[in-house]
Amino acid sequence: MNQITQENIQVGEIANGLPLTIPVYRLEGNGSGPNVYIQANMHGAEVQGNAVIYQLLEKLKHATLASSVTLVPYANPIGCNQKSGEFTLGRFDPITGTNWNRMYQDHSHLVNDFVAEFIDADIETIKREFQQRLIDTTSAILDGPSYALNTGKRIALNLQKLAHQADIVLDLHTGPISAKHLYCPTYAKNSARYFDIEHVLLIPNEFDGAMDEANFCPWWQLSETYQAAGRDIPVLVEAFTVELGSQEKIDLSEAENDANSILSYLTYKEALLNSQFKPQPITRYACYLNDYLAFYAPMGGMVEYTAELGSHIKTGDTIAKILRMERYLSEQPLNNITLDKDAITILHFASASVNQGTELYKFFTNYFEL
Amino acid sequence: MNQITQENIQVGEIANGLPLTIPVYRLEGNGSGPNVYIQANMHGAEVQGNAVIYQLLEKLKHATLASSVTLVPYANPIGCNQKSGEFTLGRFDPITGTNWNRMYQDHSHLVNDFVAEFIDADIETIKREFQQRLIDTTSAILDGPSYALNTGKRIALNLQKLAHQADIVLDLHTGPISAKHLYCPTYAKNSARYFDIEHVLLIPNEFDGAMDEANFCPWWQLSETYQAAGRDIPVLVEAFTVELGSQEKIDLSEAENDANSILSYLTYKEALLNSQFKPQPITRYACYLNDYLAFYAPMGGMVEYTAELGSHIKTGDTIAKILRMERYLSEQPLNNITLDKDAITILHFASASVNQGTELYKFFTNYFEL
Amino acid sequence: MNQITQENIQVGEIANGLPLTIPVYRLEGNGSGPNVYIQANMHGAEVQGNAVIYQLLEKLKHATLASSVTLVPYANPIGCNQKSGEFTLGRFDPITGTNWNRMYQDHSHLVNDFVAEFIDADIETIKREFQQRLIDTTSAILDGPSYALNTGKRIALNLQKLAHQADIVLDLHTGPISAKHLYCPTYAKNSARYFDIEHVLLIPNEFDGAMDEANFCPWWQLSETYQAAGRDIPVLVEAFTVELGSQEKIDLSEAENDANSILSYLTYKEALLNSQFKPQPITRYACYLNDYLAFYAPMGGMVEYTAELGSHIKTGDTIAKILRMERYLSEQPLNNITLDKDAITILHFASASVNQGTELYKFFTNYFEL
Amino acid sequence: MNQITQENIQVGEIANGLPLTIPVYRLEGNGSGPNVYIQANMHGAEVQGNAVIYQLLEKLKHATLASSVTLVPYANPIGCNQKSGEFTLGRFDPITGTNWNRMYQDHSHLVNDFVAEFIDADIETIKREFQQRLIDTTSAILDGPSYALNTGKRIALNLQKLAHQADIVLDLHTGPISAKHLYCPTYAKNSARYFDIEHVLLIPNEFDGAMDEANFCPWWQLSETYQAAGRDIPVLVEAFTVELGSQEKIDLSEAENDANSILSYLTYKEALLNSQFKPQPITRYACYLNDYLAFYAPMGGMVEYTAELGSHIKTGDTIAKILRMERYLSEQPLNNITLDKDAITILHFASASVNQGTELYKFFTNYFEL
Repeated sequence: MNQITQENIQVGEIANGLPLTIPVYRLEGNGSGPNVYIQANMHGAEVQGNAVIYQLLEKLKHATLASSVTLVPYANPIGCNQKSGEFTLGRFDPITGTNWNRMYQDHSHLVNDFVAEFIDADIETIKREFQQRLIDTTSAILDGPSYALNTGKRIALNLQKLAHQADIVLDLHTGPISAKHLYCPTYAKNSARYFDIEHVLLIPNEFDGAMDEANFCPWWQLSETYQAAGRDIPVLVEAFTVELGSQEKIDLSEAENDANSILSYLTYKEALLNSQFKPQPITRYACYLNDYLAFYAPMGGMVEYTAELGSHIKTGDTIAKILRMERYLSEQPLNNITLDKDAITILHFASASVNQGTELYKFFTNYFEL
Repeated sequence: MNQITQENIQVGEIANGLPLTIPVYRLEGNGSGPNVYIQANMHGAEVQGNAVIYQLLEKLKHATLASSVTLVPYANPIGCNQKSGEFTLGRFDPITGTNWNRMYQDHSHLVNDFVAEFIDADIETIKREFQQRLIDTTSAILDGPSYALNTGKRIALNLQKLAHQADIVLDLHTGPISAKHLYCPTYAKNSARYFDIEHVLLIPNEFDGAMDEANFCPWWQLSETYQAAGRDIPVLVEAFTVELGSQEKIDLSEAENDANSILSYLTYKEALLNSQFKPQPITRYACYLNDYLAFYAPMGGMVEYTAELGSHIKTGDTIAKILRMERYLSEQPLNNITLDKDAITILHFASASVNQGTELYKFFTNYFEL
Repeated sequence: MNQITQENIQVGEIANGLPLTIPVYRLEGNGSGPNVYIQANMHGAEVQGNAVIYQLLEKLKHATLASSVTLVPYANPIGCNQKSGEFTLGRFDPITGTNWNRMYQDHSHLVNDFVAEFIDADIETIKREFQQRLIDTTSAILDGPSYALNTGKRIALNLQKLAHQADIVLDLHTGPISAKHLYCPTYAKNSARYFDIEHVLLIPNEFDGAMDEANFCPWWQLSETYQAAGRDIPVLVEAFTVELGSQEKIDLSEAENDANSILSYLTYKEALLNSQFKPQPITRYACYLNDYLAFYAPMGGMVEYTAELGSHIKTGDTIAKILRMERYLSEQPLNNITLDKDAITILHFASASVNQGTELYKFFTNYFEL
Repeated sequence: MNQITQENIQVGEIANGLPLTIPVYRLEGNGSGPNVYIQANMHGAEVQGNAVIYQLLEKLKHATLASSVTLVPYANPIGCNQKSGEFTLGRFDPITGTNWNRMYQDHSHLVNDFVAEFIDADIETIKREFQQRLIDTTSAILDGPSYALNTGKRIALNLQKLAHQADIVLDLHTGPISAKHLYCPTYAKNSARYFDIEHVLLIPNEFDGAMDEANFCPWWQLSETYQAAGRDIPVLVEAFTVELGSQEKIDLSEAENDANSILSYLTYKEALLNSQFKPQPITRYACYLNDYLAFYAPMGGMVEYTAELGSHIKTGDTIAKILRMERYLSEQPLNNITLDKDAITILHFASASVNQGTELYKFFTNYFEL
């Protein structure tokens, strides 16, 4: 059985002095596979990833590991514990409103100098040296003046420093009420076939502050810059945001399915040896981020969501009924809301009570089989 | 087709001067039946009652009405619109923490003087005169100095004034994640058989600020005081809190079922004439309020709720698994939570992420067939 | 210099397993004086009490102590850390709305049996034995089934158990924007003269869940029950809620004044020996709780609070101006709000933006010199 | 006396169907001066701007107006009414966390085509035509599919459409606890001398979603693009964010001072004729946005803010004391926080209770006399 070690890292302290710590679990492989980093629960309500990490640990301890694997549940000790009413208000810093998953640091600015310096280096050197720069640059901010770091940045940088040590990074999230889907950088499209996830969002090389982007953007940039300089190197790191389903929910048996899906991908990446984990034979649909449609409530009201998660909608289909009881006599109280496009229903809002302009749904449009 | 009229009553105004109004719908009967008052959505997230009122209106406009029926959706224009993250924070005043359904006024203190004055009056006089006192006393507070009324009290009294005009009062609520259940004053136990609700909570004559209590407590007290004075009169008003299921959800077809259930009860009370609505042949279970068990989380953690809503639990059954990932190596990470009693599962908490001491479940214990 | 010891008690754990702990500081006296218990910050935003405890520790370590003194800052590790926007949302449990200072346990029900059993006991025995019952009853709840305790109750009982060991209990709070005032049980009126606090609220023997009440109600009840049984014993415990001023503020020099005020009272109670602390020669005003007037906003709007804290208002004086910009043309945009009584201004709401019915002010009415 | 007209524009509707409206007041001038647009209270807690608009209306109705002036109080009917505890949670959308003042639309992309088309047009034509494009482009989004607009965007675009009709735009805000300061685009530096505001932030031509930027960025871009094409035209619009002081406060007399300050600027811009309003002879300090230092709490704790607003700090000065009561015995409980730069104190956090990483202060550094 593989040994698991635990380290608790401190990422902040709260007003009464209680330290904010995050548990970090590690298994060591034989060193031949890519290093793997998996975290969960950066957004407070998105708890299912913790159960997936539980199931991963249960399975990894019996696996033959080529890779070292780092697993980080409870990645955000503030978000995790921010209640408002019965629900967890953990999507953004309650003080500033900043999304906890938009506070990672972009290191793409390191690329140009690096390529100039290592233009003729071999791949191993490039990988080792660039990785070290990412780690060092992250550490330098953490070790800089402490007054320069806000709460979320300090949490994010501590996690990012761990993630930069890996070649494969998985950030486990959930949607509000959601079908499973995968945020996948376009270059890693082929890898998406190894997850048991039907819906794949193909995202471009644009940094918007998220964990996956913080890991793949600099390496993607590196590859493109070498290419511009006439040299072809692959993108050496893969990073994904895995959307496991709905928030505010723990389902241990579904978590085992998701652990299997991740292990199938890790088997493909040769992180596990002699592994039986294989992708399920399902049809996978992909959609470019530009075609990922946010549908905002065209009126305030009480919503019955009638489009099932994962369902394929045809132009003109009803996706919701919005009830407006104050106009029972004067106007139509029950309003059919339709979509003017073909689409796949990916997620919907968590509450039936919405303002005009609340994000009701997100849809894949212009989707295609992967 | 019966005529429906609408009145919008103003119950407050907010900081930028916008008036808070509530729509009130009315149908008039032939005057032979008991007056009926039905409201919904006093708690912001408990929206399904609005859909039930919609279905009731759709059916009542075609019914033969003995009673006048007043229907009030969106009873709380503040709670309805108080968002915090994706959910509706509408259970309590966000400023004071006071539960919106604990701000009604107890008028039981009127009873002693009334009985002394009307000791020999006939039932019709008693009913008419006592009802008028309830209405007048409520109005007097509303018409008193405006600086004496807090926000929730003003909303509650406006609704209570309408409700006191009725002989039957239904307050439509939901639980967090919940089976249907009915709060029923013990004296009205027989009426509970006419709702299609399997779980009936029998509650005593104690005022705790809720709408149902504000309506039945004074009349119950009246009956008991007459009895103490040697005269037997029934409790002349019935009031219930109807818990329709889970919050944050609109389901129009389930709302039709609930409308039918309410119409079955109203048929029994002869509010409808020539009505076909009948109770479903289901087994109903009752439990005294004292035996309604709140089960608080014995530890913090991530919860998989394994007891199904409505399920009959045996002593020692597992009701939840609590995951504690930070102790994966040091202690048991997955903790079986059991109940030490036989019970029926009525509701559970809305989030999987709980502090030690969060209310996980509520159970009927010492339950019996009604 | 007196030795100070520290113990950290655990009062809960949050969703990610972090334990909630409270630091408890103790100094031992020579045993001749009354035991003293002082806590602060039960409401999250009411932080100044922590600074007062800091100043008390700085002074007590050099004092000659007759009493043992227990000091508990950061009494509520959840409330302390519940942010919503820039402010601390720590007045009530964010999940349930229950005020953190309404969850203490009433033990007055122990009194009748106790008096029957100890009707002829000497005072020392009465004191020792009744105190032990209070402690034991509190412990029994804490040691009972853990599923029976909600989050706030567990915190409250842990503190209450410490407080029952004392003869003098001070619970340090603040108002929103507030003058200093003291909640004082009527029987302890004379003690109020030893605090440097101009405004004294005289409160009756009614339990409403607060820390001070949890400590004085049973003892007051005990005294009254002995009296009913024909025996005169004093109330053996004093408990106060000390309102230090405004919330969300730390002022170390004002904290020193408040520490001096508390030490003046403790000197009077002979908790300190050879102590120079004396009350300031100020006029103190008292008011019965029934005369403590909550003034709710008669309209929504933007408020300029014009009545100064501590000011003596005459009937008809303007206490606020409420601006209503949306009616600049149609009605009076600027509304003078007056009070129809003579009063002392004790506190006002923290925000200038109010709904109709928001508590604008609290006033002493029918006040008198103490 | 000038006529004032009122229009109420609808910018949304909430879950119970209540429309969200904003009052818009207008005065017409003789047409010779620049059009003026002034709004207030986009952030819910920043209410003082409403009082300033009140004072402006009181004065403008007696002024000789060259310009038409549009005044919009209560600009955000959701933010204005979002309470959480006693404070107003109106800085960001409570559902998404998005800052309400980051949802305006950037129209700078219109510039290149426009300059190509109007390269030789006269200034009046350029101004009229480009302004019309800004208005039309804004209208087109508002008139597009309603499912494409989220709640905040719909509010912002409605306001932006009004603002684009003006040549001078003032967005009235406040800081948390704050000295007055002015966000001023660098090109309009000279205008800053006409406000009675000591602290001026010089901001670059970068769009970050705010009202002032939405108005000056396209015009600044236009000027630069003409310059690149070899033609010199001034920036034809001025837009400022005026930070009036602290949030959650109404002070009518200070509002009159601020109204005078704004009228002094409008007099300089010849919006008023025969006007006596003049700037106060105060020293004004300026700082580039890059030098505007956010100082985050280096530790969690209870903060006494010791740097006075507007004070000039020297390197090494204490700016705060942070109390950490849980380490009274083990470490330093009272921690001096110093600044390692010369600076002017502009604002500090609203609460004394802070997490590590909470923004404690903002300072001007590398400041200079304007």
